Amino acid sequence: MIKEIKIRDARFPLAKGAGSDAIHRDPVYSYAVTELQDDSGLTGTGLAFTLGEGNDLVCKAARFYAERLIKLDIEDLMFDFGRVFNELSNEQQFRWLGPHKGVVHLALASVTNACYDLWAKKRGVPLWKLLIDLSPEEIMSTLDFSYLEDELTKEQALQLMKDNSAGRTARESIINSGYPGYDTSIGWFNYSDEKVRENTKIAVANGFNAMKLKVGSEDAMRDIRRAHIVREAAGKDVKVMLDANQQWTLPQAIKICKQLQTMDPYWIEEPTHPDDILGHKTLADAIAPTKLALGEHVPNRIIFKNYLQTGCAGFMQVDAVRVGGVSEFITISLLCRKFGVPVVPHVGDMGQLHQHLVLFNHIALGHEALFLEHIPHLQQHFINPVKIENGVYVTPQEAGSSCDLKL
Amino acid sequence: MIKEIKIRDARFPLAKGAGSDAIHRDPVYSYAVTELQDDSGLTGTGLAFTLGEGNDLVCKAARFYAERLIKLDIEDLMFDFGRVFNELSNEQQFRWLGPHKGVVHLALASVTNACYDLWAKKRGVPLWKLLIDLSPEEIMSTLDFSYLEDELTKEQALQLMKDNSAGRTARESIINSGYPGYDTSIGWFNYSDEKVRENTKIAVANGFNAMKLKVGSEDAMRDIRRAHIVREAAGKDVKVMLDANQQWTLPQAIKICKQLQTMDPYWIEEPTHPDDILGHKTLADAIAPTKLALGEHVPNRIIFKNYLQTGCAGFMQVDAVRVGGVSEFITISLLCRKFGVPVVPHVGDMGQLHQHLVLFNHIALGHEALFLEHIPHLQQHFINPVKIENGVYVTPQEAGSSCDLKL
Repeated sequence: MIKEIKIRDARFPLAKGAGSDAIHRDPVYSYAVTELQDDSGLTGTGLAFTLGEGNDLVCKAARFYAERLIKLDIEDLMFDFGRVFNELSNEQQFRWLGPHKGVVHLALASVTNACYDLWAKKRGVPLWKLLIDLSPEEIMSTLDFSYLEDELTKEQALQLMKDNSAGRTARESIINSGYPGYDTSIGWFNYSDEKVRENTKIAVANGFNAMKLKVGSEDAMRDIRRAHIVREAAGKDVKVMLDANQQWTLPQAIKICKQLQTMDPYWIEEPTHPDDILGHKTLADAIAPTKLALGEHVPNRIIFKNYLQTGCAGFMQVDAVRVGGVSEFITISLLCRKFGVPVVPHVGDMGQLHQHLVLFNHIALGHEALFLEHIPHLQQHFINPVKIENGVYVTPQEAGSSCDLKL
Repeated sequence: MIKEIKIRDARFPLAKGAGSDAIHRDPVYSYAVTELQDDSGLTGTGLAFTLGEGNDLVCKAARFYAERLIKLDIEDLMFDFGRVFNELSNEQQFRWLGPHKGVVHLALASVTNACYDLWAKKRGVPLWKLLIDLSPEEIMSTLDFSYLEDELTKEQALQLMKDNSAGRTARESIINSGYPGYDTSIGWFNYSDEKVRENTKIAVANGFNAMKLKVGSEDAMRDIRRAHIVREAAGKDVKVMLDANQQWTLPQAIKICKQLQTMDPYWIEEPTHPDDILGHKTLADAIAPTKLALGEHVPNRIIFKNYLQTGCAGFMQVDAVRVGGVSEFITISLLCRKFGVPVVPHVGDMGQLHQHLVLFNHIALGHEALFLEHIPHLQQHFINPVKIENGVYVTPQEAGSSCDLKL
C-alpha cells in the first residue's frame, strides 16, 4: 500500500556549454521527482524532465496526481493502469490546463513513472524484465487508447502485439549483447569547432558508430562547416544526426536542409516548431530521401497519431518523461509499430528509464533495435547510472527503472 | 512606468449545473489575474481562465513573466510588443514547459492582456477604440508571426489589413448598433429537459436568435431528444449550435453528428480531442455540409495554422484567455481572415475582453460580425460587466478592456 508521497525539485547545473542548442542556451537539467513510499519499505521513483525554470510548477502538479494514489496497492493500481491513467489525465477541472500537454502532462509522467518503478521493485525485477514478462493482455490493461480509435483500438493493439511474438526468442539475445547507444554530446551548440572535432574522435574511439551535432546557427554556413567537420572526423560509415531544436522557420528549414544533405545526415531532428504537423510534412516531401526525426516536444499520443498519419517522420523520438510516462510511451510505440516507424527516444531521463523501454520495444513489440541516445552529464547523480561499454548500453540488473537519484 | 505587479487567484463557484458539459461536470470558473500597477496610478488587469483546480499554477507562471516587465513604460512596451511577446514566450528554460501551450501559455495570456488593458487605460479609451485607431503598421508591430512564414508573413498580413480598409466606415456603424450575442446558457449538460426548454423560450424572448446546447451524453438519444427540444422551442429561424466538449471518439462523432443533422445545427463544436487535427478533417468531410466549430482548447497560432490548412473548421473559436492573449488573438484572426474562416471566440473571459476584440476584427480586419458568445454567470464579479440588450452587446465606453474584477 502506498502510504506516503514525496515530491522533490532536483536541479543540476551543467558544465559550461553542455546541453546548449540553438534554442536553449543555458539549460539547468532538472527533474520533478515523484517518490511513492510503500508500506513494505520500497520507494517508487518517477521523473519528469525540465530545463530548470518552472520545475517547481511540475512538482506542484505532480503532487496533485500523486495524492490520489495514497492508500492504494501498487499491484491493484497497475492491474488496470489504463483506466487510472485515463482518469488522472481527465480530472475534470485540472484537464483545462492542458489537456494532455504542458505542465500537467509532464507531472503525470513523473507520477506514472513512479508507479512503474514501484511495481518493478515490488516484483524484485528490472522494469524491462517486468514488461517483457507481462502477457499481451496484461500490457493492454495498462494502456489508454482513447482518441486513437480510428487508427488503433485496444483489440487491434493486442493483435499487433501477438503478431510480433514471432522471432521474440532471437530478439531476447539483445539482453546479453546490450542495446546500441549513440552519442549526443559531441557537438553541443556552444562548443567550438575544435572541441566538436575532438569529441567526435573520442566518441569513435569509445565505440560509438552514431552521434549527433547541434545545428540551427544564425549563420547557416556555421552549421554546414561543423557538419562537415564531424563527417570528416567520424568517417563515412558513422551515422551523423543533425538537430536544429525547432530553430528554423519552414522556408528556412527547406533551404538549409537541402544544403546539409551534402554531408549525408542520417536524420535531421526538430527542424521547426513541434506543433507544426503539416509544416513537417511539407518539409519531409521537399527533402526526401533525407529523413526527419521528431517527437521530443510532442506531448501526447493524439499528436503522435497525427504525425504518423502524415508520414512525415522517419524516426519517432517519444520521450517517457515528456508524454504521460511509461504507459503512454508504450501506447505510442504500438502506434509507431503499426505505421512501421522506428522509435528512438529522446532521453530527458539520460537513458536511465529508456534503456528498459527500448528493450521492451524490441523484444515484445518487434521494433528494430536501432540505438538509444546517450547523454552523460548527470551520471554522478544517479544511484545506478547507465553503463555504456563500447558504445553499447549494458542491460541493467537492479530492480526497478534505474531512476533513483542521490539526494 | 510599471512599478508593481500583483497576481491574484480568483475563483467563483457557480450555481448548481451551470457551466457543466460532457467533460466538465462541476467547474469553478476561475481567473489567474495579473495586475500591472503604473506609477501614474493606473492598474492594467489581465485574465487567464481556468476551471478551478490548478489556477494557482497559472498564477505562479504569470508572476514569472510579469516580473520581467517591472520598470518598463507601457507605451515603450507596446510599441514593439511583437518582439516582447516572442521573447517572453521563448524564455529558454521556461519554454520547455510548453512550448506555447498549457500552463505557461495561459499565464502569458494573463500578462499580455494586462499590458493591453494598461495601454488602453493610459490612453483613456476603450480597448476596441485603441485598436481600431492604430495604423496597420502599428498593429503589425504588436504581433509575432514566427512559425507562420509559410502562410502569413508580417508583410502579407500588413497588406491583408490594408486591403480590408475598404468598407471600413460602413462597418463602424456596429459601434452604435452593438455586436450581436448568442446565448450559451440555455442548455448546460446537467440541466433537465424542462429547464432547457424553458431557457430556450426565455432566450428567444430576450432577443437572442442564436443559442447553444451541450451534447455528448453517454446515451446519444438524450442528445438527439434535447436538440429537438431546443429546435422546437426556438423555432426554425434561430441558429442552434451543439457543443460536445471533446467527448466523442472520432468513430462516435461521425455516427452521432450524422444523426444530429436532422435538427439542422448551425455548427457542431469540439466534437473530439482538440489536438486531433486530421481527425477533425475526416469528420468535417464525413458530415459536410454541416460545419464544425473549434479552437476553445487550441493553444497557439501554429496549431490554428494547421487547422486552417486542412479546411476542416467552419468557425474558429480562438479565445484570448487561452492563446497568448490579445496579441496572438489578433495574429490568429489575421490568419483566419486569409483563409476566409469567421472568428467566433470562446469567451473564457465571459465576453468582457472579447467584446472589444470582435469589434476590431469586424471594423479593422473585415471579419463578418457574426455573433459573440454570452455567458452571464460572473456578471456580479466584474466592475463593468458586459451589457446585453435585445440579444446585442452594448459597446463598452469605459477606458481599458473591461476586465477589472471586484476583489
